[in-house]
Amino acid sequence: MKDTPETQAPWPPAPWTAGAAFLDGRYMPVGEARIPVTDWGYRRSDVTYDVVGVWEGAFFRLDDHIARFRRSMEALHLRPPETDDEIRAILHRVVALSGLRHAYVAMDCLRGAPPPGALRHPALGRAYLSCYAVPWVSVASEEMLARGMHLMIPQVRRIPPESFDPRVKNFHWGDLTAGMFEAQAAGADFAILLDGQGNVTEGAGFNVFCITDGVVATPARGALEGVTRASVMELCAEAGLACEVRDIPAEEFRAADEIFACTTAGGIMPASRIDGRILRNDRPGPISERLRARFWEKRAEGWHATPVNYALAEEPAG
Amino acid sequence: MKDTPETQAPWPPAPWTAGAAFLDGRYMPVGEARIPVTDWGYRRSDVTYDVVGVWEGAFFRLDDHIARFRRSMEALHLRPPETDDEIRAILHRVVALSGLRHAYVAMDCLRGAPPPGALRHPALGRAYLSCYAVPWVSVASEEMLARGMHLMIPQVRRIPPESFDPRVKNFHWGDLTAGMFEAQAAGADFAILLDGQGNVTEGAGFNVFCITDGVVATPARGALEGVTRASVMELCAEAGLACEVRDIPAEEFRAADEIFACTTAGGIMPASRIDGRILRNDRPGPISERLRARFWEKRAEGWHATPVNYALAEEPAG
Repeated sequence: MKDTPETQAPWPPAPWTAGAAFLDGRYMPVGEARIPVTDWGYRRSDVTYDVVGVWEGAFFRLDDHIARFRRSMEALHLRPPETDDEIRAILHRVVALSGLRHAYVAMDCLRGAPPPGALRHPALGRAYLSCYAVPWVSVASEEMLARGMHLMIPQVRRIPPESFDPRVKNFHWGDLTAGMFEAQAAGADFAILLDGQGNVTEGAGFNVFCITDGVVATPARGALEGVTRASVMELCAEAGLACEVRDIPAEEFRAADEIFACTTAGGIMPASRIDGRILRNDRPGPISERLRARFWEKRAEGWHATPVNYALAEEPAG
Repeated sequence: MKDTPETQAPWPPAPWTAGAAFLDGRYMPVGEARIPVTDWGYRRSDVTYDVVGVWEGAFFRLDDHIARFRRSMEALHLRPPETDDEIRAILHRVVALSGLRHAYVAMDCLRGAPPPGALRHPALGRAYLSCYAVPWVSVASEEMLARGMHLMIPQVRRIPPESFDPRVKNFHWGDLTAGMFEAQAAGADFAILLDGQGNVTEGAGFNVFCITDGVVATPARGALEGVTRASVMELCAEAGLACEVRDIPAEEFRAADEIFACTTAGGIMPASRIDGRILRNDRPGPISERLRARFWEKRAEGWHATPVNYALAEEPAG
């Protein structure tokens, strides 16, 4: 895996190699991309986002991410000036400007804030985009991937759909962050949160699956409808594995034969422990590993890939 | 009410008159205070804050706000370098630098982010402060205060304490923002959210009280323990009014004789309608108005007041 640009000259120079951003109409090195402390995107977390990965110079499922981003914006009454085609062009350009062949590419839409003196209502905000490409980051370390992730179920409960629809990708991570502190205290790598009814939802930025008697299952509610999750379902269909989308009680999850997580920033990530219980031989399970291997095989074959247009990498004006 | 500085020369010059900020160790005009788009304070809403008001050149209950801010930071494992005394000095200085006699003064503590290459865990973040003073803003307009606020109970439910403790002041406003859109669609001024059990919690940045048969009541759970809420309890005690802190079902709230909201940015704000029902004569209720009048009388007398040290207003170095 290469985290550094492969193009040498004339683009990109430092500081663009650390990442490139598009903020409210302008391109800049990511280190210069800053938002006002008074912006409601920060101050009320009134923002939605999406993240698409670039691997070997190609986006994975770019249009699926843009379509979900648009659905999220609509759900929050956020209407930036850019069309989907313009967003697509911006994402190509921030990756091109960074020169990165492996990138984590974020697209945010912030509320802005009402003009001074106006009523303090979000409908009066001026929605705008913030997008950036930075070197690929993985949720799990290589060591974790090799031994299998150690998961735990914390006390904190996932914010329920009645309060915020988890299918609208959002930065309300207080529950997930609390879970990460609980996991750290328990000596685990990651926390998997339950909902108020005791069913499994998701972790901090990833969906989860469990496998019992050869049947794969993933939560039906309380979680993001992940793009990598959809890819896993396609892999299951291809492999002839039953994949159920339904409620998964904590007890079933803890007793599963195998568990894995999945996310844009990490692909398929098998677990080897849950709440201290060792799954099988304390290593990633065989079905999880088969799905993971097939995922990267297909990626290498160009599955759902859109090559980045690196020709957009001339220095931006202004 | 004066929104403009009273000192003329030599301080403050524009652009400080729009507000002054302290960000991560440096003072600057508020318009220059910006946070990185990659900061977890924004990106995971991993941040807590507090807001103290300045009226006629004096803070209201400054130490209570700083004490709550510290409790919130502790709850989130956020440990910035500044002591409480240093925070107090920063707040005095941002107000002095703005020259404002009436100000909304925010103090935030953000997670920052782990250094590049480190494990992506919040415990590795570098917590830092962002504070600013801007001209006083009121939650309610003068017209709303005169006629009484029109409230409504939306479909969206308040994020439950099991997911995020509402006593830790936070920017997880997605539910409150959704409520504001529901209120707008219903022709109301503000939404008051219920919890999952159907009890009243709070609105977007304010606590609520209802009065039935001369007894005042406010929700025991699911809401911020507001500093103005505490002040209302003191006023009730002084006036010989019973004030109960307990669960308030939606039906009781809708049927109350009087309702009012309270917040730093607005004081006591009586309502005249709830879900279309007219309370009494479609005007603020008599007990609410008496409490409101007494609140501002006592404020004028210097109740819980700490005069701002405007002598700190020399131009900052760097």
